[in-house]
Amino acid sequence: MKSASALLAASLFAGALLIADSAQAEQPPAGAIVRIAELEIDPTQLETFKAAVTEEMTDSLRIEPGVHAIYAVAEKDAPTKLIFVEIYANQQAVESHRNTPHFRKYLEATKGDMIRARRIIETSTIQLSAKP
Amino acid sequence: MKSASALLAASLFAGALLIADSAQAEQPPAGAIVRIAELEIDPTQLETFKAAVTEEMTDSLRIEPGVHAIYAVAEKDAPTKLIFVEIYANQQAVESHRNTPHFRKYLEATKGDMIRARRIIETSTIQLSAKP
Repeated sequence: MKSASALLAASLFAGALLIADSAQAEQPPAGAIVRIAELEIDPTQLETFKAAVTEEMTDSLRIEPGVHAIYAVAEKDAPTKLIFVEIYANQQAVESHRNTPHFRKYLEATKGDMIRARRIIETSTIQLSAKP
Repeated sequence: MKSASALLAASLFAGALLIADSAQAEQPPAGAIVRIAELEIDPTQLETFKAAVTEEMTDSLRIEPGVHAIYAVAEKDAPTKLIFVEIYANQQAVESHRNTPHFRKYLEATKGDMIRARRIIETSTIQLSAKP
């Protein structure tokens, strides 16, 4: 019984280490790169655009290990003005994202006059603070 | 030995459940609110401002359960133009943040002519995608 308790304690400790690792993994990795995209969408095509971009976001998170997060919001007072905050593990992840099939599919689906204006802001990180 | 193995398996399974919970906790909570602040800082006071704001960010994450993340970046081509992406659990967390001692300390430390221009963007969430 004593050895079983020791085993339990050891495996719970191992579990705790795994949990700590897991929590750290959710923090933006050191050297993470943030890109911000401000897009203005043709109001008559807003829902079509949102459908294409949210599918692309979901695919990016699922498929690309270097895509840490993509947050999509609209300005409260201007729902056709969308802002995307993209967090990548590193510059390599930014480059490879552009060449993925799901990103190319999104470009194809949203080409033409759907996007009226676009501003991409490349940034230098000051501090990225997130829970565990 | 058989019961020890069963115990090990059970505790590893319990550990796995805890890990899954832990990973989910890092996702922005359902109903999360994103605020974006664009600030232009007096270049001669940029380092003083950064020191005050990064301390405030660290305190917010440590003390406030409703502050999920604050990301601070500078425009790569304009290092005095800072962008803050703040993710709160809900509107209540936005309100209570403003009344915390660390936020008031930050306001006091950065008042006067340190911040040259300020634009706060309130947003509606479209989709917040993050790893696990």
